[in-house]
Amino acid sequence: MSNYEFIMKLALERGFYFPSCEIYADAPAGFWEYGPRGVSLKNKFIELWRRELVRRDGMIEIDGSQIMSKSVFVASGHISNFTDPITKCTKCGSTFRADKYINEKVGLNVPERLNDEELDQIIKKNQVKCQNCNGEFGKVNRFNMMFRVGIGPAQEEAYLRPETCQTIFVDFARIFKTMRGRLPMGVAQIGKSFRNEISPRQSLLRLREFYQAEIEVFCNPNKLNNISKFDEVRDVVLNIFNGSAYDQVTATDAIYKGLVPNKLVAYYLSLLMEFYSKTGIDMSRTRFRQLPSEDRAFYASVAFDFEVETSIGWLELVACNYRSNYDLKGHSSTSKQNLEVVDPADLTKILPHIFELSMGIDRSLYAILEHCYFEDFEHENRLVLKLKPYLAPVSVGVLPLVNRDGLSQKADEIYTELKQDFDAFLDVSGSIGRRYRRLEEIGTPFAITVDRTTLENDTVTVRDRDSMEQIRVEISSLHSYLHNAIRLPNNLRS
Amino acid sequence: MSNYEFIMKLALERGFYFPSCEIYADAPAGFWEYGPRGVSLKNKFIELWRRELVRRDGMIEIDGSQIMSKSVFVASGHISNFTDPITKCTKCGSTFRADKYINEKVGLNVPERLNDEELDQIIKKNQVKCQNCNGEFGKVNRFNMMFRVGIGPAQEEAYLRPETCQTIFVDFARIFKTMRGRLPMGVAQIGKSFRNEISPRQSLLRLREFYQAEIEVFCNPNKLNNISKFDEVRDVVLNIFNGSAYDQVTATDAIYKGLVPNKLVAYYLSLLMEFYSKTGIDMSRTRFRQLPSEDRAFYASVAFDFEVETSIGWLELVACNYRSNYDLKGHSSTSKQNLEVVDPADLTKILPHIFELSMGIDRSLYAILEHCYFEDFEHENRLVLKLKPYLAPVSVGVLPLVNRDGLSQKADEIYTELKQDFDAFLDVSGSIGRRYRRLEEIGTPFAITVDRTTLENDTVTVRDRDSMEQIRVEISSLHSYLHNAIRLPNNLRS
Repeated sequence: MSNYEFIMKLALERGFYFPSCEIYADAPAGFWEYGPRGVSLKNKFIELWRRELVRRDGMIEIDGSQIMSKSVFVASGHISNFTDPITKCTKCGSTFRADKYINEKVGLNVPERLNDEELDQIIKKNQVKCQNCNGEFGKVNRFNMMFRVGIGPAQEEAYLRPETCQTIFVDFARIFKTMRGRLPMGVAQIGKSFRNEISPRQSLLRLREFYQAEIEVFCNPNKLNNISKFDEVRDVVLNIFNGSAYDQVTATDAIYKGLVPNKLVAYYLSLLMEFYSKTGIDMSRTRFRQLPSEDRAFYASVAFDFEVETSIGWLELVACNYRSNYDLKGHSSTSKQNLEVVDPADLTKILPHIFELSMGIDRSLYAILEHCYFEDFEHENRLVLKLKPYLAPVSVGVLPLVNRDGLSQKADEIYTELKQDFDAFLDVSGSIGRRYRRLEEIGTPFAITVDRTTLENDTVTVRDRDSMEQIRVEISSLHSYLHNAIRLPNNLRS
Repeated sequence: MSNYEFIMKLALERGFYFPSCEIYADAPAGFWEYGPRGVSLKNKFIELWRRELVRRDGMIEIDGSQIMSKSVFVASGHISNFTDPITKCTKCGSTFRADKYINEKVGLNVPERLNDEELDQIIKKNQVKCQNCNGEFGKVNRFNMMFRVGIGPAQEEAYLRPETCQTIFVDFARIFKTMRGRLPMGVAQIGKSFRNEISPRQSLLRLREFYQAEIEVFCNPNKLNNISKFDEVRDVVLNIFNGSAYDQVTATDAIYKGLVPNKLVAYYLSLLMEFYSKTGIDMSRTRFRQLPSEDRAFYASVAFDFEVETSIGWLELVACNYRSNYDLKGHSSTSKQNLEVVDPADLTKILPHIFELSMGIDRSLYAILEHCYFEDFEHENRLVLKLKPYLAPVSVGVLPLVNRDGLSQKADEIYTELKQDFDAFLDVSGSIGRRYRRLEEIGTPFAITVDRTTLENDTVTVRDRDSMEQIRVEISSLHSYLHNAIRLPNNLRS
């Protein structure tokens, strides 16, 4: 089995994630649920994101509707541009995404931007046939990947947002005003987005309904090097990949060498590095891939993908796009609202530009699981998820050594006390070794064992997941012991 | 202005919530965004819910897809039953919800369960006309309130879930197995639900897209009084309203008097009381309304609505329904899967029954805001949101007394240190009194002022929002001072 398959097995059997509506034959592909361990990991990941990006930078966080009006997507360009080329078999009706299908069958590396006629010609020239019935394909046409919904009895046209950032653009004017905004201003949002993928695949990696954590930094394009916060990150090392070669440089040198266009972009790429370095992802297997113009999204003038190496290849976790004023210009002209703001320093009016960090949460969680997955053959083939203690779904297991002599009652008391403030789990059934294994598999950093000594002197053993060492701790100091062992240290306090 | 209007003004101007897509003329009604203060309040409310209900009871939490297959809603009954009667003007095409329209125009109290012919007769008999053009109405027919979406190029029929609980029912078998479940087992979920309301209204109170926090307790119908945890809540007072009279009774007496059918139901109603009593809602203005059979949802055999009194009447925050085995029976027969589980105590096979606590998050937040809203005319007409410290969107403001003499730099240092672990807000502009007012309006429990004494001896003043008293605290102990002042006390620790 590949590591991808190991993680999938673990996810399915231990409550991390599993397919949606799986008891039904008509369950559509590309929809997954988070089980209890996945929910907890996801919530803790989001809290870390809030701490290390939103609070650290003093960003504003909003949470908007997923259904948005048609005008939003006229302005954003999604109605006309957010399409995939599809081709349908004239014999059996099977439909495929044309460019991907050609790549797979002919082995051609078809660029993403070919038009429908060019694709038709390739299909014809290479005699590409339907894989199901060997039938001929009809003409390539366009499939819009947004989900349409009808509002009210009149079924007014609206859409599920294909990216959370549109909410931020549309809400910009009110947020800037009511929050007394000043440029640069970061606005963040966690939420679901929806894309009607033709071929969803690989569990959390290509979903039709997925979680994004997007950050849109509204900025003055004339002051992209006027970023005093840059000094905090000047020595952060960025690993920049231009498609053939790597440059490992500090944020300062990245600007100096022209690898990153300005301080604002370098600052946010550095924050992202610092954030991910706390997630348990092996940072030596990450890179910022600089996208050549033909691979960039239609609105992006500078683009880096933050990528992580996994068992199934390099995975894009964050798209970092300099979107210029594309978004506010579009919304301003479509809505007929003036979205300019005044720079208080020189009283000039500016339509802000935007730099974004568009993070895929589901993919990030997958990458964390894979990078934290270890098989320890020296110790009974134990399988250990070495999650950071502050990200582990269960922080502490409480185990009576045996299920008699009053040990269970004592364990229950300790569990009851701890569960108010910690994700605690009481496990009474099975051998103690088996119970340790179950906790290690889901990444639980600490296991408390209640033994006969506990009844004598009110101490328990606390076992460390990685070293498997045990120390005795007084019950009365368990709470503060765990609090200190699990929390993320404050970088700025001694 | 009514309190509803005061809260609305505050929400719009101070970043709690505001209409979605508001820059566009085609913004559909019934969609709202949470601004930064609303997001923070909501997240803290959800954390309290997790602590006081999910963790306290040892429940399992999942997070599922919002788009679900058609079969799910065939099984649940929503395809056939989740409809509203509508009538359309034959002249101008205006469409109304028939029963509500009749109630409004004729003043009849039309029960929810009349069929279309009965509604037609009332319209005819009372000569009800269109309010827009005085035209005649066509025949009443049914409008399904689910939003339909089409999956993939073939546009396979699927729906946005109208209640989060369907995810829990459909996932039950896997959860029970992989999490080594035992009855009773509570499964919880926070997420969005969608209802295509004909007339959404009153901001957060009737939305087309809204947040639910649902808890589904799977139980053995033969053991509803076999609930050892009941002893924890036996003395919790429940205020039960039968439609005309109130009974204020302990959970124990509620069962004894037959007001609540069994210990399981009484236990969960009591947990709910204990949870809401920590939210800042005035519990003397709450009640459990027992629903008569004609007002219950189609699947409920016993039902209580947890209601809160507000300036616009009693508001339902939580529907507490004993759903019997309606849900699992429907999903079992439609999916052809056996969803029975074995009770390990007597090895009998059981199709679990379900008792649910279906909470509206948006409405709960509204009720909290209204109950915490105070005007203090004795002190410069100050407007104070007396939110519980652990729910306040901003926990602490940091204010230099004046913006010179190095006070701003010192305030900035303190802010930078605190913001890693607290929702802190730095405010340097305006008179100190005005800055206090701004913090009080959004419910900030503490304001730190940096003054000249700070530069001399490294102390600051900490001002309490409600008493307006100030004490001096050393900067080095600010972190632990705030931590203790803001956190919810652990009920079980001394």
